[in-house]
This record gives sequence, structure tokens and C-alpha cells, in this order.
Amino acid sequence: MSLKEKRKQGGTMKSAKDDPKPVDRGGLMMSTKGFKGMARSPKEAIEHVVLANRILANEGVLDAFGHVSLRNPENSNTYFQSRSLSPQFVTKQDVLEIDLDGNVVTKTDMRPYGERIIHAAVLKARPDVNAVFHGHPLQVIPFTVTNTPIRPIAHFGGMFYEGIPLYDDYDVSSGMLIATREEGERIARALGSSRALLMRGHGCVVVGDSIQSMVMAAINLRDNAQVQLWAMQLGQPKFLSYEEGRQARKIAQESAVALGRAWEYWVARAKKAMPDIA
Amino acid sequence: MSLKEKRKQGGTMKSAKDDPKPVDRGGLMMSTKGFKGMARSPKEAIEHVVLANRILANEGVLDAFGHVSLRNPENSNTYFQSRSLSPQFVTKQDVLEIDLDGNVVTKTDMRPYGERIIHAAVLKARPDVNAVFHGHPLQVIPFTVTNTPIRPIAHFGGMFYEGIPLYDDYDVSSGMLIATREEGERIARALGSSRALLMRGHGCVVVGDSIQSMVMAAINLRDNAQVQLWAMQLGQPKFLSYEEGRQARKIAQESAVALGRAWEYWVARAKKAMPDIA
Amino acid sequence: MSLKEKRKQGGTMKSAKDDPKPVDRGGLMMSTKGFKGMARSPKEAIEHVVLANRILANEGVLDAFGHVSLRNPENSNTYFQSRSLSPQFVTKQDVLEIDLDGNVVTKTDMRPYGERIIHAAVLKARPDVNAVFHGHPLQVIPFTVTNTPIRPIAHFGGMFYEGIPLYDDYDVSSGMLIATREEGERIARALGSSRALLMRGHGCVVVGDSIQSMVMAAINLRDNAQVQLWAMQLGQPKFLSYEEGRQARKIAQESAVALGRAWEYWVARAKKAMPDIA
Amino acid sequence: MSLKEKRKQGGTMKSAKDDPKPVDRGGLMMSTKGFKGMARSPKEAIEHVVLANRILANEGVLDAFGHVSLRNPENSNTYFQSRSLSPQFVTKQDVLEIDLDGNVVTKTDMRPYGERIIHAAVLKARPDVNAVFHGHPLQVIPFTVTNTPIRPIAHFGGMFYEGIPLYDDYDVSSGMLIATREEGERIARALGSSRALLMRGHGCVVVGDSIQSMVMAAINLRDNAQVQLWAMQLGQPKFLSYEEGRQARKIAQESAVALGRAWEYWVARAKKAMPDIA
Repeated sequence: MSLKEKRKQGGTMKSAKDDPKPVDRGGLMMSTKGFKGMARSPKEAIEHVVLANRILANEGVLDAFGHVSLRNPENSNTYFQSRSLSPQFVTKQDVLEIDLDGNVVTKTDMRPYGERIIHAAVLKARPDVNAVFHGHPLQVIPFTVTNTPIRPIAHFGGMFYEGIPLYDDYDVSSGMLIATREEGERIARALGSSRALLMRGHGCVVVGDSIQSMVMAAINLRDNAQVQLWAMQLGQPKFLSYEEGRQARKIAQESAVALGRAWEYWVARAKKAMPDIA
Repeated sequence: MSLKEKRKQGGTMKSAKDDPKPVDRGGLMMSTKGFKGMARSPKEAIEHVVLANRILANEGVLDAFGHVSLRNPENSNTYFQSRSLSPQFVTKQDVLEIDLDGNVVTKTDMRPYGERIIHAAVLKARPDVNAVFHGHPLQVIPFTVTNTPIRPIAHFGGMFYEGIPLYDDYDVSSGMLIATREEGERIARALGSSRALLMRGHGCVVVGDSIQSMVMAAINLRDNAQVQLWAMQLGQPKFLSYEEGRQARKIAQESAVALGRAWEYWVARAKKAMPDIA
Repeated sequence: MSLKEKRKQGGTMKSAKDDPKPVDRGGLMMSTKGFKGMARSPKEAIEHVVLANRILANEGVLDAFGHVSLRNPENSNTYFQSRSLSPQFVTKQDVLEIDLDGNVVTKTDMRPYGERIIHAAVLKARPDVNAVFHGHPLQVIPFTVTNTPIRPIAHFGGMFYEGIPLYDDYDVSSGMLIATREEGERIARALGSSRALLMRGHGCVVVGDSIQSMVMAAINLRDNAQVQLWAMQLGQPKFLSYEEGRQARKIAQESAVALGRAWEYWVARAKKAMPDIA
Repeated sequence: MSLKEKRKQGGTMKSAKDDPKPVDRGGLMMSTKGFKGMARSPKEAIEHVVLANRILANEGVLDAFGHVSLRNPENSNTYFQSRSLSPQFVTKQDVLEIDLDGNVVTKTDMRPYGERIIHAAVLKARPDVNAVFHGHPLQVIPFTVTNTPIRPIAHFGGMFYEGIPLYDDYDVSSGMLIATREEGERIARALGSSRALLMRGHGCVVVGDSIQSMVMAAINLRDNAQVQLWAMQLGQPKFLSYEEGRQARKIAQESAVALGRAWEYWVARAKKAMPDIA
């Protein structure tokens, strides 16, 4: 039995639906309406891909591996992503355009990431998503291999109030990497309408409607995991309720003001640490 | 039942009043008499607000979010605080004057922090307080969501010898942010005469009679939380007694010598890491 | 009874052989065929020794102590290694040629590492190994002194799918350092055909067929240990199966693409942090 | 009952004397004979005091507080120590000469550390000691407030093989700081012939016959504490035996070669991080 099935059967996973106050989600799961930072052109989207790579490396969420993607604002059937390169060193010249089957559209012989199919499959299955993260923050992995799911423990984790599912249906022959279109589709199905997906013994997928929202979600998932590791050592934590999480997401994490301030902060820090960012 | 009520009823919280040696507190809770570093003019107060923001970012106590305030030395009914901006990047030009109802006094269209009402309400309720911190150090949050309160475990935590109360009366509709005057007043009441307040699933408020004393308390609260997390893994710690804490606060944390040395250290480190500080 | 014997008798060590799906290892344990980064000349090997020292210091795997070695590509009976010097400061001028009995071949009066016999003995016993690491990453040591072995908990630890044995047969008179040819041989026997060896109360030995593969294994062992420490706090983790580990090693850790990208990343980071690298 | 008494009565402290292989200590506890780095003149001693302050700040063992001292090589009745200043910023101009009663000998109005009596009392009681550290590394404090003593868990902790006693006899009125000659003498008695002393809810004292040996002991005590915190989460660790510790101290930590290499490393790192070191 996979860990996912154990969690479903008698597991300790208390998903959002155990909460007595379910609330009509009404329309799009995410909306950062009013936020001015979303890319309006392919040129700007490419610049944002560079920034997101540098930010997530600088904040310790990505290392030699992991990747981000952003949907083409002028063609919802393609997305931008670095060639196979460590995030800390991505420049505009490294960014490829890829379609939703994982084919590289850019005329180039640069090698794409082997796991780009994660991004293609999620962007195909989720029209509300424009940006995807896949990485292996060390603090997150313990929650992928035990019966303890990540749950919102502080307001900055509120965006995960609907629960974070777990993927555990690997093609063993692919070495726990997601390399085929079929496994990409399984990943997208496991993610469903959620904000993030844990991958057993591997890492996570995090999504957002903008690259800023995705970056915030990736950082907050890591920080929520760290706090939860500490708190569970003291005893059973009181997690955010469904409604607290829902409101915290709306007001504290995805308001135009909060996203704008955080993005400005991450960009400034990354540029200070990496003066070569164009 | 809120976590706060559970702690009150049968909780594990052993507050200072369980200690057999209560001591007359005599007058002001805090006094750093003799300390020469307190701001004497609005100009100096604004410089101190810049330094406190930079120091707390540099020492890892604040990140993209959180804020500090300092009462106007020439008008006890207003205080200085940055516009809505990450602490690491605050300059003198970003500092606003705000009154104790949270109204921006400075003629400007710069946006203030949404949670400035925390500072306004605390400064209104506590004439002995001149400086307020609100932030979300990750090590502190576990103690806001479990039945384990932060207690002084080392001499540098002695300043919290009177106990740290817990706030858990959120307006759910505000997303766990403190946005209304009513909730600001509830925060101030929960803080009472204490040196710090934990906020469930959110973070903390820390106060001081000078900005230096507030900065030290914010750093020491984080460090005490870290040591307590480690110690509780080994067994039940022997915490400081009420009297040990009271003396440690007076001699080790709020003497003019200790505050002066620490402030000089934090300023020098911040200026080295951020040469743009004016 | 040594800790090693306890583990053998009734210990909790579930080695790879407990796994129901053993797989024929067929030929060499490691093969990074197709990887273009392997040193082809003594000159290049010396440059790689310098880089590996700098990288492992920069990534926090080595501090004042610990060392790496690389077999001479033109003479399989000698290897290259720094003189007795902290890894962070090794330059090409510090690299010695040493034979497989630990004798310094280079005409010099520079002092070699006292523990060079570890490298000599392992390179003598293991023709498939070209690079050896010995160090003391703090996260690894807890697994050398308790009944809990390190097991692959994430795909990046897959390379250790065959189990990591434990050495606990010290000559007490040598202060837990490996100083004699006899003890070097015992280390090599304890390592056997494994990818790594834990040394009780001391540290570890990690090997690779290239210096890049050895560096990746040393970093991944440390990271796997960190994740395992966190996960075991939450409950009993689901580790990678034998076959998952085997495939992950082949595809995710020792493919030419993965090794190339990681090496480029580590080198660039080290050169940024240490501009004096030649 | 103090924590120290509890440890003595039925505590979990397994001191060195429980070990079946006690060994004649013969003469001086410490001897780094052959080590060339010991200060030979007051001028050199002052330079070493500056370096030790900078190193311990740079390696994260000291922060705004804590201090080091070194006996005058030309007058065993005085020692050198910074004026009251954070270790990260000490220069040669800040170093005072102080006698073994804590009186400042240097003609100056610079303020000495309030706790200099720790150093005076230890140097007076221990002719074999030339250098003293007092600080508050966060990882060490958990072992001062629980029934778990620090014991050698890796070879680098071997130097503490004779056990680390605990001080818990504070003058409450001094705020857990050591400010009087009487309390200084109690500290020295509690230290006895040991290499280090834990201070309940405060920190530690560490000694050495040279400043290099003291710096290594302070860093190793912190690292041993960190590894022990992690290991005890996994189960009961196998600590070094008395004889293993004794040999490890002699060979791995206090040989001229090991001390020389480590000192060179720490100095180079400190000078890189703090180019203002004279």
C-alpha cells in the first residue's frame, strides 16, 4: 500500500473537508486581481523567469536542481523555462519556450530539463495556473515520507488551507524523476485543484496564478514545514481552521499589497547577492 | 475553546505567579535609566527607526514582513514607523508620523502598514512603552500553537520573567491580520503590562521603553525560543525563577552598559552588511 | 560489544538485503559512462582536487579538517591529495602525489595528512573507485553513534541503496584517527563494495568513480542525514525501496547530465565565494 | 535542590569515573608541547586576544556578549582581555591588562567587562591554564538546564573526556552574572581540574593552556552539543569511552599539527570576513 493510500484509509491526514466550516470557493481558486506585477509580454515573462530562479536560489528554496515555469502571456499553450541549468545561474539567454506536451518550441539545441513534463502537464490541466515550481526543499521532504501532512500552522501557510495531496505512484524505472507524459498527467491529477502537491521521497510542486504568487507559495511552504517540524516536537499543534486559512490566503498572501511588497524584497535581495542579474 | 482559554484552565502554563518569591514591581515595569541612547528629537527617532528595521532584518528576526515603531520624543501622541516596505530597505525618507488611532499625520500619499493599529493601540495603552515590534520569527511560532509557553530558560530571556500571554481572539474575516481599531485594543488588553505577547498562528508583539531595549527583547525572545525548543527535546528544563528573571532583566539586559554594547554591535553589523544606511 | 555488532545481531539496521527485490548488480557498481568531466591528465586531476576541496568547504561539508583524493589518471597506483591543510585554502601548489601504501611520491618536505592511509587503502582495495572523501559532517555523526543507520529517504539519497556499513574497530591508542596501514585495511574491508562507510563517533568515508560523483555523494549523504533526522521526529519514514534507490542513483545522480549540471553549479558557487581559485 | 545536586544524587550524569578504564593523568592535564603558536611576548599575546575574539565571533560561538582572556607570558599574575566591547570589533587598542583579582592594571579609563572576575579567578586557581573563554553558545545551554550533561560523542569532543561539571550556585541578586570575587571563586572551584564548566541557564567556561587550544575547545564544545542534540533524538548514543576521549584529545585535538592547521584556518577565515583585523 502506498503512503498515499494509507493516508486516505486510516491516516492522520485531516484534510480541509474535516473542517466544520466549508465555504463556497466561488470561481477561481486564486485571484490576485489588482496586482500589477503580472507579466504582460513574452519579454517580461522571460525576465520574471530569470528573477524567480534567482530569488528561489537566493532564499535557499532551490539548489543545483529544481525549476520554475511561467505561461506565455500571449499564448496560453506555451510556457517559458530555463534550459537544463542550476537556478542560481539562469539568464535571459537560457530561457526556452516549451509547449504543453513538453516540446521545445524555441529553435535551439539547448537541452531542456528532463522533468519539464511536470510543468507542461500542470499548465495544461489547470487554466487558472500560470506559474509552476518543482523543487526539493529539505524541510518539506519529511512530510512526504511519513503520515504527517503539511497543514497551515501560521498565517503565511494559510494559502494551503484546502489541503496538500501526496503523490506516490512513481514509475520505478524512471528513478523517481517525472519523465514521461503519462506520469506528468498523474502528477497533474494528484495535484487536482490544490495549491501544492507533495511527492513522496522527492519534493513538491507548487503553483500560482502569477510568478510572484508561486514564489511566495514555495517560500511559505518551506517555512510552514519548518515551523511545523518544531511545533510537533512540543505537542499537537492547533492548525489554522479552513476559514482562517481561506481568509489569510486572500488578505495576507495574495493581496496586491502583500505580493508587491514581498516581490520587491526578494528581487532587491537577489540583485544585491547576484549583481550579474540583467 | 481557544488555545488561550485552554492554557488558562488546565494548561501547562506556569506563569510567574506560581513562583514562591513574588517581588514588588515598584513603579515602571521597565527602566533603562542612565542609558544615553534614547532618541531626544524626532530627527533622531527617525534615524533609530531606520536602524531598528535594518538590524532586525540583518539579525534574521524580520524578513519581508513585520514592523517596528518608536514614539515621538516631542509628542507622546504620535509615533514613527516606515511606510509599507520590507524592513531591510527602510530609509529615513520612508518613515511616517502616525497618531495613536492609526491615522497618518505626515502629509504624504505613501501607504502605511495595514497592521499599524497594533503599534497605535499598544502605545496608547502603555505610557511606559516607547517602542513596539511586531513580527513572525519562525522559532517563536511553535509556542503560539501548542500548550507550551515561552519561559525564561537563559539569563538573556530573563526580561520575560513576568510571563508572556497569548492572543487568540482573531476576527476571522481579517485573515489573522490585525486591521481594526477594535482588534488593536484587544491586542493591547491581551498584552497587559507584559513585555511580549504571543499571537496564535501568527507571531508576536514585543515592547520596550527605548528602541534599543525593544530590539534586544525581540532578538532575545527568538533566541530563548530556539534554546527552549532544543532543551525540551532533552527533558523538562529548569527555567529561571521569578526573582532570577527579574534580576537578570535589570542587570544583564537593561543596564545602560549592556544595552549600549549590544546596540553598538548590532548597528556596526547592520552597517557592514548594508553600506547604504545613511 | 561494538555498535556494529549490535546492529548485526538484533539491530534495527534494515540493509538492502531485507528488501524483497534484490537486483543483479551486473559488473561495476558505479558507472558514469558518458560523463565528460573526468580528469584525463595529472594536471587536470590536480585542478579537480583543488576544486573538490573548495566546493566541499563552501557547501559546508568540510571545515578545518577532512580531505579528498583522486586517483592519478595516468598511474592507477598513485593518487593526488592536498598536503596537511584545511580544504578551504588548498591550491595546486599544495597537492601531493601519494602511492597506495601512503608514501608521498612527490619530492617535497610538505607534510601529508595523517589519515591519508584511508585513501590509500580504499583506492587499493577498490579498482572501481577513483575518488575518496573523508570528513565529519555534523548531521551524519548521530547515525554513527546510535542504532539508526542512514537509509535513502529522498531520491538524492538513492545512491546509498545498498546500505551504508558502520566501522567500529578503532585502535584506541590512535585517538580514533586512522593512522596505520592495518587500520586503513580494516576501513577498506568495512567499506566493502559500498558507496559510503560510517565511522562511529567520527564521521564517514564516501567514494565515487569520478571526483564529481564523490562530491555529489558527500553532499547528498549530509542532506539525506538532515532530512532523516527531521523525518524520524515525525514517525517511522517510508524509505526508498532497493529498486527505487538503484534507479534513482542511475538516473538522477550519476547520469552525465545530472553530474554535469551539479558540478557546474558547485564550481561557480565556489569561485564566486573564493575568487583566489586559480 | 539545585540541578547540580540532582545530577550528583540520582542524575543521569555518567561521569568519566563510571568508565572501567580510568587512566593515570600524569602531570599537567593539558600539554600542547611542541606547538609553536603560543604567545611569547605581551605584544603577541595582545594580537592573539584580538584574533581569538574575531575568530569566535566569525565562527558563531560569540555574539554581542562573551569574552576571552590570555595570561601575560611575561607575568603569570596578569592577563590580557578586551575592554567591554563585542568580540567582533575588538582591536589591539581595546586590550587591557588585568590582575588575578580583577583589577585593571593598564592606565586607562576604558571600562572592563563586568564578568572579568571569571577569568581572574580561573587563572588564579589553575596554573596549567593560560586562556579562558566565557560565552553563551545557544546549542550548549540546553545541557545546562536539563539532566543531560554534554559528553564526548565524536572524536572532536574527546577533550571533554573527564566530564564537564555544572555550576548552579548563583548570587540571585547579581542577575545570573558573575560579578563578585566570591562568586568567581565558586566558579573556579566548580570548574576544578576540568576542561569546561556549564553554567545553568547561562552558558559555559572553557579553558586551554594556549589561546589556540581554548578556541578549539570552545568551538568543539558547541559542535559536540549540536551533534548530541541530534543524536539523542534518535536514541541513547554510544559516547566515547574515557580512554578513547583521552587519546583523541592528545592526538586529534591538541597535537601541534592539529592545532596549527585549525588555527591557520580560523585566522584566514576571520581575516577574509573582517579585513580590518590589523
